[in-house]
Amino acid sequence: MQPVMTARELEAFLSREFPQVAGDFAVEEVQSNRARIRFRVADRHLRPGGTVSGPSIFALADVAMYLALLAMIGPEALAVTTNCAIDFMRKPAAEADLIAQARILKLGRVLAVGDVLVFSDGTETPVARASLTYSIPPRKAATA
Amino acid sequence: MQPVMTARELEAFLSREFPQVAGDFAVEEVQSNRARIRFRVADRHLRPGGTVSGPSIFALADVAMYLALLAMIGPEALAVTTNCAIDFMRKPAAEADLIAQARILKLGRVLAVGDVLVFSDGTETPVARASLTYSIPPRKAATA
Amino acid sequence: MQPVMTARELEAFLSREFPQVAGDFAVEEVQSNRARIRFRVADRHLRPGGTVSGPSIFALADVAMYLALLAMIGPEALAVTTNCAIDFMRKPAAEADLIAQARILKLGRVLAVGDVLVFSDGTETPVARASLTYSIPPRKAATA
Amino acid sequence: MQPVMTARELEAFLSREFPQVAGDFAVEEVQSNRARIRFRVADRHLRPGGTVSGPSIFALADVAMYLALLAMIGPEALAVTTNCAIDFMRKPAAEADLIAQARILKLGRVLAVGDVLVFSDGTETPVARASLTYSIPPRKAATA
Repeated sequence: MQPVMTARELEAFLSREFPQVAGDFAVEEVQSNRARIRFRVADRHLRPGGTVSGPSIFALADVAMYLALLAMIGPEALAVTTNCAIDFMRKPAAEADLIAQARILKLGRVLAVGDVLVFSDGTETPVARASLTYSIPPRKAATA
Repeated sequence: MQPVMTARELEAFLSREFPQVAGDFAVEEVQSNRARIRFRVADRHLRPGGTVSGPSIFALADVAMYLALLAMIGPEALAVTTNCAIDFMRKPAAEADLIAQARILKLGRVLAVGDVLVFSDGTETPVARASLTYSIPPRKAATA
Repeated sequence: MQPVMTARELEAFLSREFPQVAGDFAVEEVQSNRARIRFRVADRHLRPGGTVSGPSIFALADVAMYLALLAMIGPEALAVTTNCAIDFMRKPAAEADLIAQARILKLGRVLAVGDVLVFSDGTETPVARASLTYSIPPRKAATA
Repeated sequence: MQPVMTARELEAFLSREFPQVAGDFAVEEVQSNRARIRFRVADRHLRPGGTVSGPSIFALADVAMYLALLAMIGPEALAVTTNCAIDFMRKPAAEADLIAQARILKLGRVLAVGDVLVFSDGTETPVARASLTYSIPPRKAATA
């Protein structure tokens, strides 16, 4: 199955629906059941010592899975996160953006399951991993 | 084992160490292995439709467990979250603060494990539950 | 909401549907959204050193949540586990049964969420905690 | 970092330390931070309808991560699972073995974190995914 939304369409959707946070994220690549999302780390995401806060990393994982899902089912879906298990494994680099690699492992009628690896930009060992379940509400006609 | 920090001491610690977010939280009660934390919901925590964002609920669960832990081991610990599993179960009320009830289930030498229930203030059915593991670094002499 | 099945009815259901494992479990108490289940620890559940194996503890948590759920919705439901997050916190006592306390936190139309504490019989500090999500298939007329 | 144990050495270790279950598993391949494990599905692992039981899938994920870890740190380690988050996504095929692909994402001094995909043999869509944390006790001299 191929994506039904492009990276640019996903960013436009984010700007329209989540204007408060859309500027934090860039959609770098979308493929079938996969998305790569950049998190533009700014001072407000940092904790003492210069590390990115846990809630910011959670937010990135959540958004990355959400966008990977929307890319497959389109912008009409009011999908909501029902579950997330996240492991914080390393301290992110202070001066680097974060990159999330999301993949969908199951895209069912009611539930979608996937996982996300989060890296400091330019490094190859993940700072966090997360698995997420999204609940997909009954489809209605597209309104976008 | 009794707490070694009071609610006021925890709030003072939060203001000193996490000035960016300390104002969002109030420590309502501390008991042995338990803490009740209020999250003052403001516009910036909301999503379209008036619901509190997932990352905000995650942040509350994380802070509540952290404060329940610090209450037991004192402010010198550089404890960090290593794992969180969270279930989002209901949509929070739009106009209400959130209340987190954290309890520690294991307080070991290296790891602490606990869980948190999150409620909309004034309701009795939880909007979310989370379990968290904190890594406790080797203790050094108190510096606070 | 009150349970629609008693402890004895749940045990009868277990014997009928899961004869391979039913003998391992006893339903000690059922209340609204809660169940207490005993796991009769036998040699085949042990690992070297006399401790109960992780998969056995997982099985107990899974069964306890399942029975707490069936008690509320009745034996006709083909509920299946979709997610479990489990923390193993202490080594179980070698010569003791395990006791699981399950509670349902959300009983929705499609998903049920709950958590379980597992104790060595006679002790008050949990050896494990688990949170579980069950998927509830569309209800059909009862066939039992 | 290269593995310090081969597939055959891991199987020998399993037979010696876990004789009750060793026959269920075959170590198919070991690479740096990765292991592929076969679970020989037998009648005792099945549930009504011919599907593999949840605890059996959990046991496979747990063993696969354990063996991937031992391959890297050697047989002397008394590593124990401290946390597992598992998603059951599809019903396994009835007549097929299960294959687990484990990878280690972090191998620290005290904690190791990894994830596992579980497939019915011969299929490409996973039936389950799991993430696991192992606690690594302080190293002592090898006794094996």
